[in-house]
Amino acid sequence: MKTTLLAFILILSGMPALAQNKNENTKRRDDLDKPLVIARQGSYFVGGDSKFFSPTSPSEPIGGEFTVNQIYVQFQIPLEGTEHIPLVLVHGCCLSSKSWETTPDGRMGWNEYFVRRNRSVYLLEQPSRARSGFDASAIIAVRDGKAPPSQLPLVRIETHEAAWANFRFGPSFGTPFQDGQFPIEAVAEFYKQLVPEVYSNPSGINPSLTNIATLAMNLKGVVLIGHSESGFLPEAVAMTNPSSIKGIISIEPGSCPVMSAIQISSLAKIPTEVVFGDHLGDAQGVAGNWIPMYEDCKKFVQQLKDAGGDAEMMYLPMLGIKGNSHMLMQDRNNLDLADLLLDWIDKHVESRAAQPETGKR
Amino acid sequence: MKTTLLAFILILSGMPALAQNKNENTKRRDDLDKPLVIARQGSYFVGGDSKFFSPTSPSEPIGGEFTVNQIYVQFQIPLEGTEHIPLVLVHGCCLSSKSWETTPDGRMGWNEYFVRRNRSVYLLEQPSRARSGFDASAIIAVRDGKAPPSQLPLVRIETHEAAWANFRFGPSFGTPFQDGQFPIEAVAEFYKQLVPEVYSNPSGINPSLTNIATLAMNLKGVVLIGHSESGFLPEAVAMTNPSSIKGIISIEPGSCPVMSAIQISSLAKIPTEVVFGDHLGDAQGVAGNWIPMYEDCKKFVQQLKDAGGDAEMMYLPMLGIKGNSHMLMQDRNNLDLADLLLDWIDKHVESRAAQPETGKR
Repeated sequence: MKTTLLAFILILSGMPALAQNKNENTKRRDDLDKPLVIARQGSYFVGGDSKFFSPTSPSEPIGGEFTVNQIYVQFQIPLEGTEHIPLVLVHGCCLSSKSWETTPDGRMGWNEYFVRRNRSVYLLEQPSRARSGFDASAIIAVRDGKAPPSQLPLVRIETHEAAWANFRFGPSFGTPFQDGQFPIEAVAEFYKQLVPEVYSNPSGINPSLTNIATLAMNLKGVVLIGHSESGFLPEAVAMTNPSSIKGIISIEPGSCPVMSAIQISSLAKIPTEVVFGDHLGDAQGVAGNWIPMYEDCKKFVQQLKDAGGDAEMMYLPMLGIKGNSHMLMQDRNNLDLADLLLDWIDKHVESRAAQPETGKR
Repeated sequence: MKTTLLAFILILSGMPALAQNKNENTKRRDDLDKPLVIARQGSYFVGGDSKFFSPTSPSEPIGGEFTVNQIYVQFQIPLEGTEHIPLVLVHGCCLSSKSWETTPDGRMGWNEYFVRRNRSVYLLEQPSRARSGFDASAIIAVRDGKAPPSQLPLVRIETHEAAWANFRFGPSFGTPFQDGQFPIEAVAEFYKQLVPEVYSNPSGINPSLTNIATLAMNLKGVVLIGHSESGFLPEAVAMTNPSSIKGIISIEPGSCPVMSAIQISSLAKIPTEVVFGDHLGDAQGVAGNWIPMYEDCKKFVQQLKDAGGDAEMMYLPMLGIKGNSHMLMQDRNNLDLADLLLDWIDKHVESRAAQPETGKR
């Protein structure tokens, strides 16, 4: 109900025409069964710090240095990839880069779709997650009685029940939304994507920011796409190194924190798209309520606009696109949404990059 | 010295001609800069069990089920992939599927090379590793004082020092072998690949065996390739479901355990190649000594042969190929080795599969 009212209010503020896009997109899908041609693919790491590990039991015979805080990056570059600005995608909480790959029900993920639309795609895994590894030294020390349990890293397990609420699959656990776009028949496959979130750094300083800025610099400018926990990460990276972030897409950020006037003025120089799906207030419990995040992000977008920025809140129900979950890159209409984002990139980021720098906006 | 003697003895037992292969391989490398054409790619999970998580602190508000023991699989199928038996690659200890991708010094990994040689390639991540996630519930319980530290999972950290010895980069830490094939100038990039090994199951029953057997069955038969910790895993899976394992490649297995006559008789039905690199006894300390594993595997291969099996110990120095490390899929001559394996598959697995079943060998 809350969402419906919200949508109504937003509709009053103007609704872009979608029909033309839709036809164009449908036409553009005929080629998805054709072979995928890749100019180059591979993987590497960015960053990484050395840490000393002192063995605490005979089962760990060789102490010394080990590497933490590195970021695993997996990329595919299409034949015409160099004509476009590379896309860097960062997963959210309790997830890995799998988020962007084949959907739980076996459809094409954004990673391949973007490549088929001639974009170079870079998937990165946050430090302490999946192929980026994590710092397990405290677990060994506590197990061997050499450190107190309080030294263990904070870890979050996302249960099926938590995921159902947080990712807005339905009003209550086991009951999907009637118009839900998430492929709920394959939700058990989605649960397998969930990995423990190891918070390696209780200080809250995420070492990935500088590493992602380095990646963006090495790639000579990127569109940075974050989701959920990392939804506002593109903005945070841009404050570290604005010149390498050519465009920002924030998908359902877990928060849009209050920014200072100086920060807003800096971020306003980068085209920014914030995306929210449907049923923001319709899932059960505190975890399922995304209205506060939506409201904060709406304020943030308005601040960017007030500072002369090219910023947009893409609230999908306002575009007539209903039923999207928090995992909208895996929803049934995921390729429609991918096309919306590509259109936005073309019009707001690439057309701008193609023009000579005038300093004006 | 030990290796040199060993090599000499083995040379006496007959050395295959390599010259012809080498020319052929060099010729076949001209195409590696050309675009890669893929019929289909994607990722999914196999297996997975539900486990109950009961929150122990207010920071974990939603308890319930979570999924463990699932296996993450990432695949690429070339245009002519269906003409060949799919290859399934399983990484070793403290590593992820990154093992098979771009080498630390940025050369092509086996994953892409095999696809370019028209093989369907499936990389899988063992349970409790990287994108397969791990069971973190005990870490939370111990941290919150609800379980004793002894309940923590066993975890292994592979330090740089340990890796240098175990993976045989040189006689002592920091000193590479003079004829070493490992790209030692990029060893810091290799260290970033190392992830904590979480032993989720102290009983020693690895839930991946049945899941990998299921994967092999779904793919209608595979060549299963294991490395190091998982070096003997293909044999273990084959004992679970022999009909779906068409060929076995065991790369430097961490052990070749003693098998019963019945087990040997069952395994002898599957073409088996065991591969060992160089300097087996030349790296420092117990961890760096691979001669016992080599000797055990040589006995195992002989047992398969005695039982009428098509089995081979490919000891690389005996073929005149010197200096290979334990990470031979990343060594400078990694594509030469890939060609050797493909030749073996063609001659021993595929030619056999192409013939009608006669029951004879």
